[in-house]
Amino acid sequence: MNNKKIKLADLAKLAGVSTSTVSRALNDNPLIKKETRDKLQQLAKKHNFSLNTAASRLRTQKTNVVAVIINLDEQTEQSISDPFLLKVVSEINLALNQQGLELLLSNSIMAQHDWANYFINGRRADGIIVVGQGKDQRNIEAAAKAGIPLVVWGDPKTPSSYPIVGSDNYLGGMQATAHLIEHGAKNIVFLGDPEHGEISERHRGYAAALSTHKLEQHVVSIDITSGSAYQAVNHLLREKGLYFDAIVACSDMVALGAMKALKERYVSIPNDVALVGFDDIAMADISHPSLSTIKQNTQLAASLIVKKLMQQFLGEKVESQVIDIELITRQSSKR
Amino acid sequence: MNNKKIKLADLAKLAGVSTSTVSRALNDNPLIKKETRDKLQQLAKKHNFSLNTAASRLRTQKTNVVAVIINLDEQTEQSISDPFLLKVVSEINLALNQQGLELLLSNSIMAQHDWANYFINGRRADGIIVVGQGKDQRNIEAAAKAGIPLVVWGDPKTPSSYPIVGSDNYLGGMQATAHLIEHGAKNIVFLGDPEHGEISERHRGYAAALSTHKLEQHVVSIDITSGSAYQAVNHLLREKGLYFDAIVACSDMVALGAMKALKERYVSIPNDVALVGFDDIAMADISHPSLSTIKQNTQLAASLIVKKLMQQFLGEKVESQVIDIELITRQSSKR
Repeated sequence: MNNKKIKLADLAKLAGVSTSTVSRALNDNPLIKKETRDKLQQLAKKHNFSLNTAASRLRTQKTNVVAVIINLDEQTEQSISDPFLLKVVSEINLALNQQGLELLLSNSIMAQHDWANYFINGRRADGIIVVGQGKDQRNIEAAAKAGIPLVVWGDPKTPSSYPIVGSDNYLGGMQATAHLIEHGAKNIVFLGDPEHGEISERHRGYAAALSTHKLEQHVVSIDITSGSAYQAVNHLLREKGLYFDAIVACSDMVALGAMKALKERYVSIPNDVALVGFDDIAMADISHPSLSTIKQNTQLAASLIVKKLMQQFLGEKVESQVIDIELITRQSSKR
Repeated sequence: MNNKKIKLADLAKLAGVSTSTVSRALNDNPLIKKETRDKLQQLAKKHNFSLNTAASRLRTQKTNVVAVIINLDEQTEQSISDPFLLKVVSEINLALNQQGLELLLSNSIMAQHDWANYFINGRRADGIIVVGQGKDQRNIEAAAKAGIPLVVWGDPKTPSSYPIVGSDNYLGGMQATAHLIEHGAKNIVFLGDPEHGEISERHRGYAAALSTHKLEQHVVSIDITSGSAYQAVNHLLREKGLYFDAIVACSDMVALGAMKALKERYVSIPNDVALVGFDDIAMADISHPSLSTIKQNTQLAASLIVKKLMQQFLGEKVESQVIDIELITRQSSKR
């Protein structure tokens, strides 16, 4: 505090580098070699210099922040505390951090409708990652049209003007269903809302597998929460009895809700009803019986999402990408 | 794009208010009346004016962003994808949004050691919320000493120079244990690491309840993950047999891991072993048997944390605060 304040330009002169190199080094930007960053950071410390990030943003037009918008339908009870959504967000956070970027957590309350203006023109972030397509894609399309760097986690097969990274939901639905058929299931319930972007693809895969084996569809359309699955299965068992011998659930949370209702009524899993979920959240392995599921590779997806966003920062055009899924068989489907 | 660009000052003149009022209104700052904000936002839209937030931050010295640091021990396998931590973060996010603030998600990778310099002098955020005290409080203390607006989610009874908001962990541990004793338990295992800030208080409560009834302690110190609980209970049953008739788990995730190990070995819950967890995550209600637990009121805690942070923005001194806990009795402890 007693020193005469040293400026960015003075520091650059001392180190014999440009001011933008100093600015980047002090922002820990990986574009600058680790050694150079360390050297400049030590020099700054020695001279008690602290970078004024807001000023540096004005110069470089960069915030090194990426806004992540959790895009939930207004009709759903699914919340940001859904374990799978949070797993995706935490993987994205790690992937961003590895690139020297930070995550600004946002949602429809803060972002409202005009994302381009709010985040980018308002210099809150350099780009946007949207988690979940929801039923309504208008806000995403408007932001993409405005030329904002943007990547969506969703169903990559949806025709779109923006890049979508996500699992092969169709193949996932098909593999889950085929696995249950192989183990003898004949009356397989699909538990989930076939109107919803990613779930509609899972449902298409389910329908295709059934059709190959000339089996009938039993769709029970519910909200994507464990609570609504619990209520729906309770209702089915009470009103219609045990007319099904397997369930393909649109998510692990939905599968776990269904499992609770079955266990409470002494329906044996997997002997009476076999179950496959979708996602592979931590709880799938911890539940008893453990839950078979279609694993989504969120770690790989997160690193690809961040890579595609950074390519857009450099003006490159990027495409949607499908991530492989994997059937994990556990106790809930082995007869 | 074709208009001559209108400036903030022009807008202020048109509306007959100060530039800082316009700036605040366009940042949706709740200090400005809702009507005034709406009026100024419409005026800005009409004139195609978009606030340059970075520039406005330089003027007002405010970012309207709060950094949330997930403070995990280096030794733990507990990760940011732990359901309870994520529940706390999502509640804080909602509470911040309600005050017109946004959440910058951070962690020890990004923030390193000098939080004051990185976040505040670097103008990334106006204040810091730390989730979890961890075993080492040096970074938090240094930031508090530097005069940074800061609130910690942790154990509010820890002596500290900064405000801590958190549950009454001692009372929680005591109530969980007393409840099990009332239902006939005599050999109660405490599953958790008594060295860890919040858990040490839960352990103290457990010890106090046992001592009142002249019962012995059985502490099994494990990491705060469902995986380590599963392994520890498996190991206990194999090596020592069923020498206990109840478990007080330091978290719901730990309780669920223990439950899985018990169920796999056909130990009946609650008849052979009764269980109480801590937190009340969504999964506590969905598990079968459903899990009795000590509910932490994260919603109330989040709104208090944000309130105490905003009081510090105004230069007020704030104190730590204890939040009431509640025993939720479900199937896992009712004999």
